[in-house]
Parts: sequence; structure tokens; C-alpha cells
Amino acid sequence: MTRPVIALITDFGLQNHYVGVMKGVMLGICPDATCVDITHDIPPQDTLTAALELEAAVRYFPAGTIFLVVVDPGVGSSRRALAIEAGDRRFVGPDNGVFTTVIRDAAAHHAVELTESRYWRFTVSRTFEGRDRFAPVAAWMATGVGLGSLGTAAGALTLLQIPAARATDDGLSGDVLCVDRFGNLVTNIDRWQLESLGEVSVQIGAQHISQVSGTYADVEEGAWLALIGSSDRLEISVRGGNASALLPAGRGARVRVLKRA
Amino acid sequence: MTRPVIALITDFGLQNHYVGVMKGVMLGICPDATCVDITHDIPPQDTLTAALELEAAVRYFPAGTIFLVVVDPGVGSSRRALAIEAGDRRFVGPDNGVFTTVIRDAAAHHAVELTESRYWRFTVSRTFEGRDRFAPVAAWMATGVGLGSLGTAAGALTLLQIPAARATDDGLSGDVLCVDRFGNLVTNIDRWQLESLGEVSVQIGAQHISQVSGTYADVEEGAWLALIGSSDRLEISVRGGNASALLPAGRGARVRVLKRA
Amino acid sequence: MTRPVIALITDFGLQNHYVGVMKGVMLGICPDATCVDITHDIPPQDTLTAALELEAAVRYFPAGTIFLVVVDPGVGSSRRALAIEAGDRRFVGPDNGVFTTVIRDAAAHHAVELTESRYWRFTVSRTFEGRDRFAPVAAWMATGVGLGSLGTAAGALTLLQIPAARATDDGLSGDVLCVDRFGNLVTNIDRWQLESLGEVSVQIGAQHISQVSGTYADVEEGAWLALIGSSDRLEISVRGGNASALLPAGRGARVRVLKRA
Repeated sequence: MTRPVIALITDFGLQNHYVGVMKGVMLGICPDATCVDITHDIPPQDTLTAALELEAAVRYFPAGTIFLVVVDPGVGSSRRALAIEAGDRRFVGPDNGVFTTVIRDAAAHHAVELTESRYWRFTVSRTFEGRDRFAPVAAWMATGVGLGSLGTAAGALTLLQIPAARATDDGLSGDVLCVDRFGNLVTNIDRWQLESLGEVSVQIGAQHISQVSGTYADVEEGAWLALIGSSDRLEISVRGGNASALLPAGRGARVRVLKRA
Repeated sequence: MTRPVIALITDFGLQNHYVGVMKGVMLGICPDATCVDITHDIPPQDTLTAALELEAAVRYFPAGTIFLVVVDPGVGSSRRALAIEAGDRRFVGPDNGVFTTVIRDAAAHHAVELTESRYWRFTVSRTFEGRDRFAPVAAWMATGVGLGSLGTAAGALTLLQIPAARATDDGLSGDVLCVDRFGNLVTNIDRWQLESLGEVSVQIGAQHISQVSGTYADVEEGAWLALIGSSDRLEISVRGGNASALLPAGRGARVRVLKRA
Repeated sequence: MTRPVIALITDFGLQNHYVGVMKGVMLGICPDATCVDITHDIPPQDTLTAALELEAAVRYFPAGTIFLVVVDPGVGSSRRALAIEAGDRRFVGPDNGVFTTVIRDAAAHHAVELTESRYWRFTVSRTFEGRDRFAPVAAWMATGVGLGSLGTAAGALTLLQIPAARATDDGLSGDVLCVDRFGNLVTNIDRWQLESLGEVSVQIGAQHISQVSGTYADVEEGAWLALIGSSDRLEISVRGGNASALLPAGRGARVRVLKRA
């Protein structure tokens, strides 16, 4: 049997034991699991960033991977706890929108509310369900427990409003969705929208970028560039620099794409 | 055979190769080991924080887990190197108090001083015993080498003085032991001490919190709250905020619990 | 069959999904692989630091380990992509000098340029070859694919100029190569150069250190010391303090070793 993969996204950081104990709990239930960290540096309680990091990661993991996402401002409250199957991927976490991109992009999905307490730790902390409910459920799924055993059909799920790029008279108007560790500004304008326009220039704040480049090395050190990043989205960057700090700009900044005459 | 788990706590950070090479050394000795990071962000040489993170983690890992703790201000000196068994857990690290909570909480323990150099690397760096002595010993333990082979009985171990909460005329007086990555203030007042008092209010600095809540979502965004955290200790928090920065307060700050009339 | 080890060095940080998706890609190809992080906190595009961290780590990993090094200012450009065998270690990454120390220290090596696209992902992002080219190749190597299948002989490789310590009339003149997370200044003066001189003192900036110590605990808290660090290089430290911040000094600072009369 191949070793099941459990991929983790949290806002717990790595300074404390939180992530480690979730892995300890999971290895106690499924010793063969391979845990992979996607990131634990989601800004505290930022469900949108969690949804976007999940979107960027999900298709690169093997079929059967279980994604455990614990960014959970409503921990301990009545918000529901979920397990979801969508295609050949599985997901465990709170019903607060962190799975928005998964639900939106899947042809179909099946979700249950986690109600079967025999798959949880005996006592569930009201401040750390990641350890006592989500991690054990993910590990039991890794051992082969099916969705139907974990709870009851969940019905409609909580979805985040993620802004979409809009067509304009002269091109597209979009938004910065997130900023990566290099200061690159990742937008909601995707490869297919962009390529349908032919040659374009890109504008953000006072910066006007005359074309879309293929990679960083296409421009001089310190120059601004627009390119289609590794997630197939338009990104604004500075070669060898930090675009977010230099503009400055962050989430929500307006980005305009203009067809060249 | 199930795969042995080695759980790591250090103050090495992740910026350099230190943690990675310890894992490389261990996988050379025990290729089946699963290494789990508890944290590598213990403040440099802070043995008390190491002892507290270990305490918070230890019971969530599978039976048989080996905990490798390398927070070691006395590296290369004559302070002893230890391997310990306590219940169904095992521990490797320096004799400087990092195992205080384990020793205190275990019904019994058995400790040896690491004297058998055949379980170390051929040369032991005087500044990185984690790599050359502690990691190899942990890996050999994971392969099945018993405590008796590793050295000689250690006798009394170094213990840290960890302050305990005190009963007062009107409740309890305790202390902040540590601050987590969210700025939550974790105290030395535990669930059982607190529950014996009935309804209480909590005071820290100028903040007076009128009751103990069940979870963050029980109060408004930005409100102060006191709750029993995931380690069964009283914690002071701000919902969606950083209590440590707002007060400000850190380790050693006094916390008073007052019985309600 | 023992589980193959893939050890990673990147400048991707842990804030985003970049490292996680590389592991996801590799586990899809080689489910038995054990991934070990050496560090992902190389300063962005700093190939020299990558080469030095690799040098410090390489001999502590098991024979057969595959080192995946993705610090790649020229991503997406015409710089070559490499797989290298040197002794019983293997390496994958860009031809930009990150393997300088490996090539320099190996008795012999064999390198190929990665030209066989069947071992890459179907589409290769021009900004994230780590995910689409280097990670898949490392994973295929872990499954047993040989260098000869991956591409064509690479010829001369790009090497970095790493400054060497120089003999002087009264001892040695060297340089700080890097600063670790504790603020220790790691120099290019190695154990063998140093030991050939007998008793010495060490000078950096205005600090004069009268001898070489064995370990931190040999001096008082707060005192300056020079010692041979865990990588067999002369290091300048402050016990319980941050030498780099206190001087201040960083990469390139001059260090003088003076024979004692």
C-alpha cells in the first residue's frame, strides 16, 4: 500500500508546539502517513489567504492526498466542521470559506459535517480543534475511513467572495489577491483572460509596465515587470526587489490591463 | 514494524543547516524514522520554554516516541548528556532542566548519562553535540538500542524551578509562564485549580476580566478574555488581537484569580 | 529497499506554498521518498550562502541522498539545469554556482544538463522550475533513474569565487563568509590552517580575542570568543550574545589571526 499523504495549511506558525502535536496525533492513528507542510504562516485567521494557498497547491499533490486546513477564527463556536471529497482529493477543516476555491473549481463535491465523535480525541479543546477533531479525522481518513462514517451530509457550504477580474472597454480591471514572500503581487487576472487580449500593457498605481514578460531574467535588475506566475495568474514584480514594498501596494490594490493599440 | 517517531525541540531556528543535518545523521542510522518538528524557535538557550513546549506536546505523540531536545547553553562543557525513559516515552538531551516537566509529571523514570561513545559520531564537535552525540543516540534508540547500552545510571537530574500558582484569601495568584505566537499569555494556573473556585474574575495589570470564557468566539472581536487553553492552563487573550503586546506583559507577569461574591 | 532521502535547500521561505508543492510533486513520483529540509531561508538569490549551507550539510546525510538546491536568480532563462553525481551523493539544481563547494571538494564528479523533458512536468513554468523541472527530476532519480537518462554531459560548470584565507607574515588573513542565526560569524579560516600556527590571537574590527576557545562555556557570559565551529571553520562569537550585531560585522569583514610570540 502506498503511504497516504496529509498536507497541512494553518495559521499556527512554527514558534510553538501546535503543528507538531497535530502531527503527533495523526501518527498515533496512521503511522504510515507522510505529513507535508504547505504553509503554517497564513496571517492569523485570514481565511482568504488560506483558500488561495490551497488553490495554488492542490493539483500538485498526488491523487488521494488529504488536505488539512486549520485557519479557524470560529474555533469552539457552532461553525461546522467538515470533511469534503472533490475529485480525487480530500479535505478536512472548518466550514468558514477556506475551501471556497476547491468547491468552485471542482466538477462536483461531497461534504459531510463531522458529527461522529468516535473519530475525535476523547476530549475536544474548545480552542484547539485542530489537534482534537480535525487532525484525528484526517488521520482516520488516511487509514481508509470513508466520508459516510464521519458524519452527515453537510448541504450548502460557506463560501468567500473572491473578487474576479472585470472586462473593461480597453482591457481588464483586476485586483491584487495576495503578496508572496518575495513581495510579488499576485492578481486575480488569469492566463486565459490575459492571452485573449493579445499584446497588453499593465498599470498598478503610478507604475506602467509596457508588456508582459516571460520570466524575471527578461528584464534588468531592479526593473518592474508583469508576468504570468507559477499559479497561472498575472503577477507584478521587481527583478531582485520587492514590488509590494516599493509601490507600496498589497491585497485589494487595483490592476489595469490595457490592450495595445 | 511500525515506523519509530523522533520529535525535535531545539533553539536552532530554520535559517541554517543545523536541524537538517541532525535529521540527515538520524536517517543514516535509522532510515525508517519519522522526524517531527515540535519547534525549533525556542528563544536561544531558554531551557524553561523548552521544558514547557515539551510538556505541552508529550502526551499527544504515540507511545514509543523519542523526544530529542537540544537547547543547550552548556554545550561542550561538563554538563551531562542524558537519555531518559518515563512511561512509554523516551527523551534525549542535556542535563540542564529541559526535562523538568517530564520528570515531575511521570510516575517514575529511568535516566542514564550518555557515556558509550560507540553510539556517537566518531568526532564530537564541542559546539554542536546535537549533531554528533544527541541525534545519533536518538536514532540508535529508534533502532532498538536500550538505555542500558547507552551509558550509566544518571542519579539525580537537574531540575528548573518553575513557579506554581498560590492560593490566596480571595482566590489564586499565578504567573505568566510563556507567550505564544498569537500573543496569548499562558499562565501556571491549571484547569483543576480554577474549577475548584467556582465563578471567578481574572486580573492582569490594569485589565479586569469578569469571567472565564469557553472559547474566543464567546466574546466580541477586540475584547479581552480569560479561558482554559489547549494545555489545560488559564490563558489571557484578546479576540483577534495580541494580548502580550496590548498590555504589554510577558513571562513573569502576575495574574490574579478572584472568587466572585 | 531503504527509503531514498531528498534534502532541500531553497530561498523560497515557508510563508507560501512553494516548498510544499515541490514535495507534493516529488511524492507523486516517488511515494517512498523522505524529504528533509536543510533550509529554505537562504537570502533571496544568494547563491554563495546556498553553496556554503550545502557544504556544511552534505557529509552528514546518508550515502545516496539527493540534494535539491533551488536558489535560482536565472529561473526561466537560458542558464542550464543540472544533475550531478559526486562520490555517493547526487545533486539537482541550476548551473549558477550553488554546487561550487561540492565540485571543489569531490575527487571527481559527473554532471549532465537536464534536457530530457519526459522527466519534467508536462508544462514548465518559467518562474518556478523548482516545481516543474528540478523537483520531478530529483524524484525520478530517487526512483532509480540514472544520470545518463536525464540529459547530456554538461562539461564545465559555473563556479563561484569563494575567497580563501591568505598566509601573512604574522599569521593568516581571512574573511567572514556568513552569519548564522545566533549572530556567529563564520570565516573561511579552517581548522587545519589554524592548528598549523600553534597558539594564536584573533582580531576582527576593534575586537581582539586573545586565544581560541574550545566551546562557548569556556568563557563568561557576554564575553567574546573565537572557536572552531561545527563546520571546522574559525568562528567569532559572543557567549549568549550576537557577535554580528554587536560589532557590527557581516559577510566580507576581515579577520586576522596572529601567531603569539
